[in-house]
Amino acid sequence: MNYPILIKVLGVLLIIEAIGMTPSLLVSIYYHESDFTSFLISIGLCLTIGYLMLRIPRIEMDKFKIKPREALSIVSIGWVLISFFGAFPLVLSGSVPSIVDGFFEMVAGFTTTGSTTIKDFEALPRGILFWRSFSHWIGGMGILVFTVAILPTLGVGSFQIFKAEVPDPIADRIVPRIKDTAKILYTIYFSLTLLLILLFLLGGMTLYESLIHTFGTIATGGSSNYNTGIGAFDSTYINMVSSIFMFLSGVNFVIYYQLFQRNWKEAFNNEELRLYIIIIVVSVILIAINLNNKLYDNVLKTAEHATFQVISFITTTGYITVDLNAWTDFSKFILFMLMFIGPCSGSIGGGLKNIRILILLKMVKREFLKIFHPRAVIHVKVNERALTSDMIASVTSFFTLYLLIFVIGTMVISLEDISLTSASSAVAANLGNVGVGIDLVGSIQTYGDFSDFSKIVLSFLMLFGRLELFTMIMVFNPKFWTDNI
Amino acid sequence: MNYPILIKVLGVLLIIEAIGMTPSLLVSIYYHESDFTSFLISIGLCLTIGYLMLRIPRIEMDKFKIKPREALSIVSIGWVLISFFGAFPLVLSGSVPSIVDGFFEMVAGFTTTGSTTIKDFEALPRGILFWRSFSHWIGGMGILVFTVAILPTLGVGSFQIFKAEVPDPIADRIVPRIKDTAKILYTIYFSLTLLLILLFLLGGMTLYESLIHTFGTIATGGSSNYNTGIGAFDSTYINMVSSIFMFLSGVNFVIYYQLFQRNWKEAFNNEELRLYIIIIVVSVILIAINLNNKLYDNVLKTAEHATFQVISFITTTGYITVDLNAWTDFSKFILFMLMFIGPCSGSIGGGLKNIRILILLKMVKREFLKIFHPRAVIHVKVNERALTSDMIASVTSFFTLYLLIFVIGTMVISLEDISLTSASSAVAANLGNVGVGIDLVGSIQTYGDFSDFSKIVLSFLMLFGRLELFTMIMVFNPKFWTDNI
Repeated sequence: MNYPILIKVLGVLLIIEAIGMTPSLLVSIYYHESDFTSFLISIGLCLTIGYLMLRIPRIEMDKFKIKPREALSIVSIGWVLISFFGAFPLVLSGSVPSIVDGFFEMVAGFTTTGSTTIKDFEALPRGILFWRSFSHWIGGMGILVFTVAILPTLGVGSFQIFKAEVPDPIADRIVPRIKDTAKILYTIYFSLTLLLILLFLLGGMTLYESLIHTFGTIATGGSSNYNTGIGAFDSTYINMVSSIFMFLSGVNFVIYYQLFQRNWKEAFNNEELRLYIIIIVVSVILIAINLNNKLYDNVLKTAEHATFQVISFITTTGYITVDLNAWTDFSKFILFMLMFIGPCSGSIGGGLKNIRILILLKMVKREFLKIFHPRAVIHVKVNERALTSDMIASVTSFFTLYLLIFVIGTMVISLEDISLTSASSAVAANLGNVGVGIDLVGSIQTYGDFSDFSKIVLSFLMLFGRLELFTMIMVFNPKFWTDNI
Repeated sequence: MNYPILIKVLGVLLIIEAIGMTPSLLVSIYYHESDFTSFLISIGLCLTIGYLMLRIPRIEMDKFKIKPREALSIVSIGWVLISFFGAFPLVLSGSVPSIVDGFFEMVAGFTTTGSTTIKDFEALPRGILFWRSFSHWIGGMGILVFTVAILPTLGVGSFQIFKAEVPDPIADRIVPRIKDTAKILYTIYFSLTLLLILLFLLGGMTLYESLIHTFGTIATGGSSNYNTGIGAFDSTYINMVSSIFMFLSGVNFVIYYQLFQRNWKEAFNNEELRLYIIIIVVSVILIAINLNNKLYDNVLKTAEHATFQVISFITTTGYITVDLNAWTDFSKFILFMLMFIGPCSGSIGGGLKNIRILILLKMVKREFLKIFHPRAVIHVKVNERALTSDMIASVTSFFTLYLLIFVIGTMVISLEDISLTSASSAVAANLGNVGVGIDLVGSIQTYGDFSDFSKIVLSFLMLFGRLELFTMIMVFNPKFWTDNI
């Protein structure tokens, strides 16, 4: 492990975080709110420590080469570090009672999870709320480059681990170099963001509200400045616009690049995209039939809420417009399963990703085919390319590990003495980067009453889920720090 | 598909069932109970229809060769058929209100699940209770020969499907021919049965009680003649003896053969057996600590109940000695997970089986190893033999399909308007051939209030679980009946 490089890059990250806090500082100055000093102190702290980290380690420039393992440590530790320092404004302004709560809150921010310990958002200063939501947007940008640009470039052919994380063969790389890829991804991300800010403004939101909910929507985070979230607007227009943009954030960004290149055929024939759409449509229909107009005025209203909730859960956003506890167990269970599935790989959302579900289903289908053609060699193909057995093993391992963490997490959280449905949905919601679950942690409930221990466990579940499990977990292995690759 | 052979063999099965009903008839005669006529009629019916099926199809003896597909259909249809005809005594004696309930009851019997719709066992005639429990014992014998003797003989090398069902490499075959294998298996099964009957008698049970609980224990079925099950005896001796024999029924029977051959090393180095023991020990410790002497008098009593319940759930027996609803969510969740895991392959129990869990965990471990040795070819080994990628794919497919059926099953049962915990544990309990779950379907609760539709769904879940999913499901594929292999 090249520690000097590690420290230097993490220093840069802290300086970037300081810059990232500036818009929130401006918000607090604009609204003349007391939290502006907490932002000033935090920015100063990030700049100072960042600068020291950047300058102290001596390193010759020709040795400045980031190897795979350094890249992974930077991502894992970086996410923890910026969440820790990002918590300072919240703690200093008294918005949260402890650093544990602040850390939980900012992990939820940067991992685009959006789970919270705060019970009354409306009592918080606006700069803090802006920071919470803006951290989604920064995290979303980070995850996009991490999964679409960095991981495949490091991993192809040599580093097995990345296959598990970017199993989509076409995601191998958009353009050969990370910088170019990042530039294209950011252009798409910025364009979607600007468009949504405009559309929310047209829907009657103030600029402040529009920004907060745009970050929450585009980054699949789900933050709001209202206790009832985006549901506070009670507007069909806003629900529909938000549904569309959550959906778009759940699409593999490589597809946007293909569309940009007028490569229509490849974009629309993407099997993962199709599965993503099929799951959404089937879930909406099942829920709409199941709710059967009993809760809402008419078919359209039922369809609106069913669509919004299905998209909100499958994209792992976690916005809620209705009281989910009034829904039937059948409908709640569908939402529960969507938290596991998640949207497409290479998107902003969390969860298992549709590509893994697709590959697993194709493996089951192959097993049946083998009954009828016992001697045939049957390949599992995605987008017309056969997957190697190594790639399939990676998907399986990821799936197993995801469920294993879910089970262990549920065991730990069940010690909170809440119902098993609440405990398991809390774990699924944080591991899947959704934020809200069902029952006790659903709707407007929060994680505020959980013990510090549970909050820390949930924080790491968010990080595990966000960083595709292996990346985060292996940092806990001492071998990772001592062995040479 | 060779239909004449199919019909003939199913006819033989019905005649065997008639013979299997005779002990129950004798019980009803001995106790002078009214159900003896229902047994007489049912036996006559099975004999008549069985005889007709045996005689009517014309077939030349030199063509009497059972091919893999016929063998699978015989197993799948056979299990449904004997459950259907086995329900007649229950329906005719008025023990259950409908044929659906009767079918559910007997599927639960022959699949060694033991779930029930009956609310008051103690009001039923003794012959009927004997039949319910004896059907476990017959089913256990059937499953043993099916998984240890028939499947591997048919499947090795050519029929991929059997690899998923008998993933244990050493289970390939005990001795080359099915008949010899069956003879050895039955000798072990009979010996364990006789020993337990004796031990229960020594514990103060009557012969009738001893027989019923021996069948329930040895066959991991969990039937009883008391509403509170084996817990009715409230005896530490009976709990301990029962725990030991449930444990023994959860061991791969191939290991007994190895012990018989004085092949100590191979028997005790069996990795699946070790995992099975580790899971039991860890679960007992966790539950005992968690219950923390709050519910029971002392440490020993706590350990006794924790041990009994852990073994009862992991072996998919489903006997209960205490009020599980008084247990914490943490402890209940462990039992819930044990329902999925199940005991060893090649045993009488259901569930996923330890060998599959072992292989899945080893795959995750390999994925981590690949980080440190990206270029190395790392095999997944069980009992020192490397598994082929086909075998691994089979295990993964089985795991995925099992969870898929669990999810769809839970969606369907959640329409019953019970809690999600109850619905999911009802599905896990029946798919895993456990019988009792937690919450609403736990302890002395029954499936009596479920709709006929749900009862039929749960019946097929039991059959899916019992016949290793693929065997049962492919019968529903029209191709299976028309295509030639």
